[in-house]
Amino acid sequence: MDRLKQQMDFILEVDKLKKITRQTYLSDGSRKENDAEHSWHLALMCALLSEHAKEQIDVKKTMIMVLIHDIIEIDAGDTYAYDMQGHTTKREREVKAADRLFHLLPEDQAEYLRELWEEFEAAGSPEAKFALALDKVQPVMLNDASGGKSWTEHGVKRPQIMKRNEHTPEGSQVLWDYAKEIIDRNVEKGIIKAGE
Amino acid sequence: MDRLKQQMDFILEVDKLKKITRQTYLSDGSRKENDAEHSWHLALMCALLSEHAKEQIDVKKTMIMVLIHDIIEIDAGDTYAYDMQGHTTKREREVKAADRLFHLLPEDQAEYLRELWEEFEAAGSPEAKFALALDKVQPVMLNDASGGKSWTEHGVKRPQIMKRNEHTPEGSQVLWDYAKEIIDRNVEKGIIKAGE
Repeated sequence: MDRLKQQMDFILEVDKLKKITRQTYLSDGSRKENDAEHSWHLALMCALLSEHAKEQIDVKKTMIMVLIHDIIEIDAGDTYAYDMQGHTTKREREVKAADRLFHLLPEDQAEYLRELWEEFEAAGSPEAKFALALDKVQPVMLNDASGGKSWTEHGVKRPQIMKRNEHTPEGSQVLWDYAKEIIDRNVEKGIIKAGE
Repeated sequence: MDRLKQQMDFILEVDKLKKITRQTYLSDGSRKENDAEHSWHLALMCALLSEHAKEQIDVKKTMIMVLIHDIIEIDAGDTYAYDMQGHTTKREREVKAADRLFHLLPEDQAEYLRELWEEFEAAGSPEAKFALALDKVQPVMLNDASGGKSWTEHGVKRPQIMKRNEHTPEGSQVLWDYAKEIIDRNVEKGIIKAGE
């Protein structure tokens, strides 16, 4: 029963993911989305869009990967994509968070989730590349639907988005083409700055 | 590209799940949780607790089932567990919602999700029984953590909870034992009414 208690303690602890706010607004622009909602959306996208992955992926593994990819933010906080200051300490904060959070679980499951998170961060496997592509494409879709609210609030420039998405086609060329069309349309409308 | 457009239209439409509020509070009691957060929580529980399922389950299938089980509430609304009035029209409202929502997808995926939802509702397969057990145990865990806020607000009685959970052990005896211990503790504390 110790094993079940450890599992349930982890499941209760990660309820806090519902309170970690991202910079992306819901499609209706009414409020910002949180990490739990975002993770649900990615897992569903993974189930429905795996046919568009560049390489063959293990769908179950990728779903679990996206369900847990932001759990470290319970301790480390959400680092906004274009916050350069925050990114200098991101890795250190996140590793510390992973050490505490995943190790609430029984050892085998702690190791499994910890390795899955490291695999996501390393961005080397077909599953990680596809998960990262989903993680990039979903906010583009939501930002577009909300009239570019988050892009205008942060004065985001096209080159920043392109740089951030340089590996997205390695996860899915099809989804990147879809996202790029949205980005270009928003540059034309002046919602995303063309940049230098 | 029509296929991709249908998929992305569905994925954008179901963003609305983030705005369907449940009666269960987050563990800290600060606000009620929504269906997207709840579905994320269940999918993660499914990945971590499948060893406790009464019968062998297909984990990937069960994860997809819980990710989509509440999508019909985008049109049909959330019917509170102990709202007897609401339950008289629930099925009709939900079938209409399923017809519209799942059929935004390409036909093969629409059929797949529609059948998965019907399987969940029918509660006959090992996957559906386990998904239903998770769907019942998760709010017990959250209600307990928040000091029983939702139970006291609705004046919930032990016999109501027991009736609602009569099939939970068929999904997982281990999780039901865990939940029952929480319920009994809250009856002792007077948070859940003993009832007649």
